[in-house]
Amino acid sequence: MYIGIDVGGTSIKAGIVDYKGNILYKDTIGTRASLGYEAVREDMITLINKAIQYSKQENYRIDSIGIGVPGIADPQSDNVIYCTNLNWKDAPLGKDLKSRYGLPIYIDNDATVAAIAESVKGITKGSENSVFLTLGTGVGGGIIINRKVYSGTHNKGSEIGHMIIGENFYDCNCGNNGCLETFASATAIVRYTQKLIDEGFLDEEFMEALRSKDGVMDTKFIFDMAKKNNELALKSIDRMVKYLSIGIGNFINILNPDIIAIGGGVSKAGKYLIEKINREFINYVIFKEGSTTEIKLSQLGNDAGIIGAALISEYK
Amino acid sequence: MYIGIDVGGTSIKAGIVDYKGNILYKDTIGTRASLGYEAVREDMITLINKAIQYSKQENYRIDSIGIGVPGIADPQSDNVIYCTNLNWKDAPLGKDLKSRYGLPIYIDNDATVAAIAESVKGITKGSENSVFLTLGTGVGGGIIINRKVYSGTHNKGSEIGHMIIGENFYDCNCGNNGCLETFASATAIVRYTQKLIDEGFLDEEFMEALRSKDGVMDTKFIFDMAKKNNELALKSIDRMVKYLSIGIGNFINILNPDIIAIGGGVSKAGKYLIEKINREFINYVIFKEGSTTEIKLSQLGNDAGIIGAALISEYK
Repeated sequence: MYIGIDVGGTSIKAGIVDYKGNILYKDTIGTRASLGYEAVREDMITLINKAIQYSKQENYRIDSIGIGVPGIADPQSDNVIYCTNLNWKDAPLGKDLKSRYGLPIYIDNDATVAAIAESVKGITKGSENSVFLTLGTGVGGGIIINRKVYSGTHNKGSEIGHMIIGENFYDCNCGNNGCLETFASATAIVRYTQKLIDEGFLDEEFMEALRSKDGVMDTKFIFDMAKKNNELALKSIDRMVKYLSIGIGNFINILNPDIIAIGGGVSKAGKYLIEKINREFINYVIFKEGSTTEIKLSQLGNDAGIIGAALISEYK
Repeated sequence: MYIGIDVGGTSIKAGIVDYKGNILYKDTIGTRASLGYEAVREDMITLINKAIQYSKQENYRIDSIGIGVPGIADPQSDNVIYCTNLNWKDAPLGKDLKSRYGLPIYIDNDATVAAIAESVKGITKGSENSVFLTLGTGVGGGIIINRKVYSGTHNKGSEIGHMIIGENFYDCNCGNNGCLETFASATAIVRYTQKLIDEGFLDEEFMEALRSKDGVMDTKFIFDMAKKNNELALKSIDRMVKYLSIGIGNFINILNPDIIAIGGGVSKAGKYLIEKINREFINYVIFKEGSTTEIKLSQLGNDAGIIGAALISEYK
C-alpha cells in the first residue's frame, strides 16, 4: 500500500492506494496557499497522520508516501524546486517528511503523476509509450516511455506546455512567445475569444447568450456555443484545435507514442473536442500511412492525482 | 563483429565493425539511385560479399548486418517503407538480404544510426539520454533514451526536422509550414539569405565576395562571411541560430537530455556555431537554474553511418 497526496491550488487530497491503483481510503482539506509552505506542509502532515492511523486500524502496510505538486522536484533530494502557484521555492518537503515518518518520500510534478495514474488504471493502461496532456489554466504533461515515467536527466523535462509551436498575440507567463499553453489552455481560449470581440467581431447570438450568463465567459460556455455552431465560438475553438493539433503532430513526429491522452478542465468538452482533433492532427504527421498514435480522452478525472502520486515509486 | 552499411544519396559505404565501434575494414561505391531499388540492392550485395570474404580471411565471426537508410523502415519486417531521396517505397530490403545471407538484418534511419554511433564512440558516449541533430540539406535526428535508441511505437518518431516551431516564408517539402528544417538546414540558410538579397538588402561586401566565388552561395560561404562580421550573412545566421535554439529549447523542455549533439554539414561551422547557440538557447528553456542539457558538436563525421548501422542490433 502507498499513501498518495495531491497538492493543488485549492485543495490537498490524500489517499491510501494499493499497487493496482485502487483507492482504499480518501480525505481532503483546503489549500491555505497564502499562508506559505509551512502551513501547507502542516496540513499535509495532518492528512498523512490520519491516513496512517487508518492504515494501522485496517492492518495495511504502507511502503512509501508519494506527492504530486504543481511544480518540479529535485530527483536527488526530493525537495520541491519550484511551485509557482503556491509560491514555493526550494521547499524542503522531502527532507521534512522523511525525518518525520521514516518512510521513502517521492515527489513529482502533478501532470507527471496524472500520467502515471492513467497508465496504471486509465486510458493508457497497457501502453508502452504514451503522452498525457492536461489542458487547464495552463498546459502540463507527462511522458511514459517503456512503461516508466520519463522526466529527463535533470527532472526538467515533460514541460509540454512550453513547447514553442508558432507566433501568438500575447506572451506566455514564462516570458516566451508561441508556447502551446498560449494556444491550447482554458486561459488561451478565453483570451482569443475576448480578442475577437474586442476587435469588433460582431456576433449577436454569442453576446446575448453571454449576457444571460451575467457576462461570465469561460471555456465551457465557449465550447457549448461552438457545439451550437455559433460562428464566433467556432472560430475560437477551431483555432485552438489547429494549434493543439500542431503540438500533437510534433509529439507524434518526435516520440510517436501509442496514445496521446487529453485531460484537464478543457477535456470536459469530451467527444466533441476529440473528434475535432482527430480530423485535424493527421495534417501535421509526417508518416500518415499505416498505424499511428491514437488521441483519446483521459479517464480518471479527480482521482488521478492521488493514484499517480501513490504509485510514483513504482513507475520512476 | 558486425557489418554496417551506410546508404547515402551519393555513395554506399560498408564496413566491418567490432562491438566497441572500431572499424576494421572499409569499402565504398557510388549510389546509382536513378537506376532504382534493385540496382542499389545489387551494389549493396557486392559490398557485403566483399566484406564477408574479408571476414573469412581474418577469421571474424559476423553476427548481423545493419543498414542505415535515408528514410524509415518497418521494425516488424525490416523492410524500407520510404526513402524519398532514393525513390524507394516498400522496398523489401530486409527480406531480400535475410534470404540471401541467413543473418539477422537490421535497418534504420540514417540519423538514428548516427545517433547510435555518437553514443558508442562519439560525443554522447556515456550519456543516459541524448538527442542527435543532423543539419544538412534537411534536418534529421536520433533520440537515445536510457542508452537505447528511441524511435517510437510505430518506428515513426525522431522526425525532429518536422517539429513545427514558428511561421516561415516558404513551406516545407512535407507540405507543412514552420518545420525546424525550414529554419535550420543548409537549404534554409541559403534560401533566407537569397530572400534578403531579392528583397533589396544591399551589402556590397557580401556581393563582391560572392562574385569572386562565381556566384555560388552555399552555407560555408555564408558562415565564412558571418565570421567576418558581414552584416547580411550575420542577419541570416543569427535568424537560423534563433530558430535552432527554439527547437533545442523545445527538446530540453520536453526531453531534457544530458546532451544535444549537432552534426551534419552545417555543423562544420564548428565552435562559432556552438558558441552562438550557447548564448541563445537558454532563453527558451523553462528551468534555467541549476544543471541543464549541454549543446555540443558531434565527433564522428563520415564514419558515423557505418559504425551506427553495424551496431543497430545492440542499441534497439
